[in-house]
Amino acid sequence: MDKYEQIIGLAKRRGFLWNSFELYGGTAGFYDYAPLGAMLKRRIEDIWRKMYVIEEGFYEIETPTIGIAAIFDASGHTRGFSDPMIVCSGCDHAFRADHLIEGIVETPDALPASEIKRLIDEHGIKCPQCGGVGTFGDVSSFNLMFKTTIGPGAERVGYLRPETAQGMFVDFEHLFRFYREKLPFGVTQIGKAYRNEISPRQGVIRLREFTQAEAEIFINPSEKNHPRFSTIEGMVLRYYPAANQQDGDGVGGVGSGIIELTARDAVDRAIVAHEFLAYHLVLTHLFLARVGIDPARLRFRQHQSDEMAHYAVDCWDAEVLTDRFGWVEIVGIADRTDYDLSSHAQHSKKDLSVLIEYDTPKQVERIVVKPDMSVIGPLYKGNAGKVRAALIGLGEEDLQGDEIEIEIDGEMIAISRDLVEYETVIEEVRGERVIPHVIEPSFGIDRIIYAALEHSFSEEFVAGVTRNVLHFPAEVAPVQVAVLPLLTREELIAPALTIAAALRENGVFVSYDDSGTIGRRYRRNDEIGTPFSVTIDYDTLDDDTVTIRDRDSMAQIRVPIGELAGMIDAMIRHGFSTAATQSSR
Amino acid sequence: MDKYEQIIGLAKRRGFLWNSFELYGGTAGFYDYAPLGAMLKRRIEDIWRKMYVIEEGFYEIETPTIGIAAIFDASGHTRGFSDPMIVCSGCDHAFRADHLIEGIVETPDALPASEIKRLIDEHGIKCPQCGGVGTFGDVSSFNLMFKTTIGPGAERVGYLRPETAQGMFVDFEHLFRFYREKLPFGVTQIGKAYRNEISPRQGVIRLREFTQAEAEIFINPSEKNHPRFSTIEGMVLRYYPAANQQDGDGVGGVGSGIIELTARDAVDRAIVAHEFLAYHLVLTHLFLARVGIDPARLRFRQHQSDEMAHYAVDCWDAEVLTDRFGWVEIVGIADRTDYDLSSHAQHSKKDLSVLIEYDTPKQVERIVVKPDMSVIGPLYKGNAGKVRAALIGLGEEDLQGDEIEIEIDGEMIAISRDLVEYETVIEEVRGERVIPHVIEPSFGIDRIIYAALEHSFSEEFVAGVTRNVLHFPAEVAPVQVAVLPLLTREELIAPALTIAAALRENGVFVSYDDSGTIGRRYRRNDEIGTPFSVTIDYDTLDDDTVTIRDRDSMAQIRVPIGELAGMIDAMIRHGFSTAATQSSR
Repeated sequence: MDKYEQIIGLAKRRGFLWNSFELYGGTAGFYDYAPLGAMLKRRIEDIWRKMYVIEEGFYEIETPTIGIAAIFDASGHTRGFSDPMIVCSGCDHAFRADHLIEGIVETPDALPASEIKRLIDEHGIKCPQCGGVGTFGDVSSFNLMFKTTIGPGAERVGYLRPETAQGMFVDFEHLFRFYREKLPFGVTQIGKAYRNEISPRQGVIRLREFTQAEAEIFINPSEKNHPRFSTIEGMVLRYYPAANQQDGDGVGGVGSGIIELTARDAVDRAIVAHEFLAYHLVLTHLFLARVGIDPARLRFRQHQSDEMAHYAVDCWDAEVLTDRFGWVEIVGIADRTDYDLSSHAQHSKKDLSVLIEYDTPKQVERIVVKPDMSVIGPLYKGNAGKVRAALIGLGEEDLQGDEIEIEIDGEMIAISRDLVEYETVIEEVRGERVIPHVIEPSFGIDRIIYAALEHSFSEEFVAGVTRNVLHFPAEVAPVQVAVLPLLTREELIAPALTIAAALRENGVFVSYDDSGTIGRRYRRNDEIGTPFSVTIDYDTLDDDTVTIRDRDSMAQIRVPIGELAGMIDAMIRHGFSTAATQSSR
Repeated sequence: MDKYEQIIGLAKRRGFLWNSFELYGGTAGFYDYAPLGAMLKRRIEDIWRKMYVIEEGFYEIETPTIGIAAIFDASGHTRGFSDPMIVCSGCDHAFRADHLIEGIVETPDALPASEIKRLIDEHGIKCPQCGGVGTFGDVSSFNLMFKTTIGPGAERVGYLRPETAQGMFVDFEHLFRFYREKLPFGVTQIGKAYRNEISPRQGVIRLREFTQAEAEIFINPSEKNHPRFSTIEGMVLRYYPAANQQDGDGVGGVGSGIIELTARDAVDRAIVAHEFLAYHLVLTHLFLARVGIDPARLRFRQHQSDEMAHYAVDCWDAEVLTDRFGWVEIVGIADRTDYDLSSHAQHSKKDLSVLIEYDTPKQVERIVVKPDMSVIGPLYKGNAGKVRAALIGLGEEDLQGDEIEIEIDGEMIAISRDLVEYETVIEEVRGERVIPHVIEPSFGIDRIIYAALEHSFSEEFVAGVTRNVLHFPAEVAPVQVAVLPLLTREELIAPALTIAAALRENGVFVSYDDSGTIGRRYRRNDEIGTPFSVTIDYDTLDDDTVTIRDRDSMAQIRVPIGELAGMIDAMIRHGFSTAATQSSR
């Protein structure tokens, strides 16, 4: 049993994750968040909100999961969001074509369809389902969006969104007004996204329905320094730059290609393109560490120029090391330039540029052309308006000589120079119109949850028995406090229930458990990551004190019931030993 | 302009709601939650979680929005979740057929398809789109689930779920184990659900994609008293029982059919079927009042027997009075009996019954049959096993006489009575197996948000000017505190920003605003429902105090900066005047 199986086994047994639709046999690519998993997910999302919505000030919005075709035509998903597919004529089973030649070439997903097919034939790849040889058809392109129709009839096509981002891009005009027409501003969304995988094989790592947390930060293209960069510039991250990926193994240590640098150095040495991106790499690191990702198994890998979207300036993935799947991407942070807004402007035929005001308005010389309409009018009659329009559009250089040539409805006309006067004026220009650039940190919440489970898990041997522990940070643990009467006796159960209720009223998520030996109950709580257990025993009845046990150190302290809520609160915020020490002073 | 237009106008202008996909012309039945709307939604959902997940102890789960066909075959949605549709042959536009005869009959949605068509023809209804007469085809049944396919090929049909409930029902076996096999227990889900309306016309009231918050509470069918009923039995609600709906007008007051009763009386007078349901009517009322629904515009309407699902025992809708749409259902609370689990048991062929233990095990007599296999074995050779199985299944009455007749593979065989002994034993039976019943409160979050907006809104005339106010409870207001320097001067801006940052660190959602006169900024904040404004003026620079202004009363108090965070916290919890009075003592 590898670690993945061990974690998923625990997750199913203890109520973190269940296979969806298991009652009816299940379907690959779908998982349920069971009670503890849903609580863990909620807490991780809430920390993301604290950091991005409250502290960064990026308002959250919520747009539909169903989108209309026009959006995905503009974003490129109707054309480009696909995987190569091949079908076996023997058993009718469909496969991701590039997966069949893994091990034969290094980057099968980069090959064109015909080359994949050639390699499958050349190597006589068997159908993994029925064992047939030579039964594969051609490689086709399978679009990964779930398709549906909106309303009756077939004319209105809808797709389940492949990312939450597009809902934010199409709201750009509204958002810009909401933010009083000033850059930079950010907007966020946490919600479902969908990817209709051909044949998903990696459990919770590759889902057909998943949750993203995305921020789209709209910035002035000529201002990519970050106003608060100085607050994080000393933070050290593990970077794996594109230039090092040829020779390095990427695991860390000397010669691995991984370098540890401050954000300041990463920008100064041109490893990260600019401060704005570097700031968001740091923020990502802080978030991941806070929700339980082991920083030693985390790296930031830069996209190679051939894997990066053509429009992007620079792109980094936060990757975590997992036991079964190796390095797995859990966050992407990209400078997407003006690609998204320009595409939507083009497809919607709306102007999505904004006015960037100069610090001080610029004085610009320009000429004002004044055609003598008292002559031109009678002369050109019905065409007089067109003539006028053509004349006032001319520059100073066009107005030299005795005659002026203009084009009206494809025909050249000569106008006498006498009929046109012009003067030079000085005009004030407040700024220039630009399409904002977009910085996008995009988080895959489900993978982060899996990584937090795997990185938090340990098997420990204590006094001859194994204890399974999820060392979650207290802030993300689904159950924060377990309240346990030492024995299943009425005189201990009653005060225990009172204590549990009092903690709940304080907003703490408490479980109450009185079945089995106290040791067994501690182990059950260790296994679901409950950071603190409160035990009620016979001393409680005498002196109104209870025991708090720390999950990680298994240390215990005794506190008066009156101080319990405050102590638990301090422990959730600052940890067991800090809180315990401060109280004893 | 009616109130709906006024509210939606405010909601669009100030960033609560935007039409989805507006950049591409929009599509009926979809709305975006804009920054303030999304914040409001989040706060309302969080209060729901506090009440149902933390206080009631109903764990939340999260199941996919896409479901497989088997689930909806069992739930009845593939057959029954549909509306009558009619298409105009003149313009190809599809309509909800029953909507065309509104005003002609009283309950058009209760009529069969043929009757609707007959009435349309009889009254010569024109096509509302092209004006054609006699252009309508037959009335057909349009299934309201969005359909898609999972993976390549067409064989695996998926539907976007019409309710979150089914995801909880199909997890019943897992949930029952998670709750250590004891009833009652509850489970909740907040998430998207979908209804592919034929032609939605009621704005935010009728969405194709919406959010539900549902609880499924699995109970022992013979135990419908609620363990905590005594804690709420004195609460008075406005009931509109089925029996009163013939004569009453349902608006309230004498003769309206609405009666105000305590929960205790409602159960004792058999108006609500049982305590469990009555408890959840009260909880619903408490939730709705807490998020800003006006209790005077709220009623609980009982389903008539002909509108209630055939399996339900009793069903109540919480309805709110709105200006444009009259009474609108926002919550349904039903006793669904064993319908859901029985249907899924039947379709999945799994036993979903549970053992309800007797208080004390019962002693039951039964016989144990002992065939003499030393004779039967050699005698029946290959069939001996079947003979044995048939014999031990017999009852005492079958074992009289000299010969025993049994059937083996369709053939009758006589066995000598000598070859069989039996004895009577007393067995202990721990309980009986039953299918749990389900109590389901189901909340339509989007309609609740709209009702909270409409019920909170008022137009007030103060000193000759109009002020628009959203009187949200402080707990749900999107922005909780506005920090405002009295003037746009550096010496006031700097301390204002410091105060805003300090409040944010305390977890309060703060806006900072320094543009325009202070009066205009107060009005802007009144209009988005910000309960408290903190103003920094020149006295602040002298004595370190600031002004807190109350949105509702417009009263102001002055507090030291050091006490501000605590005071704001107290005001959010207990209101402006309570907090202000307590501090001055």
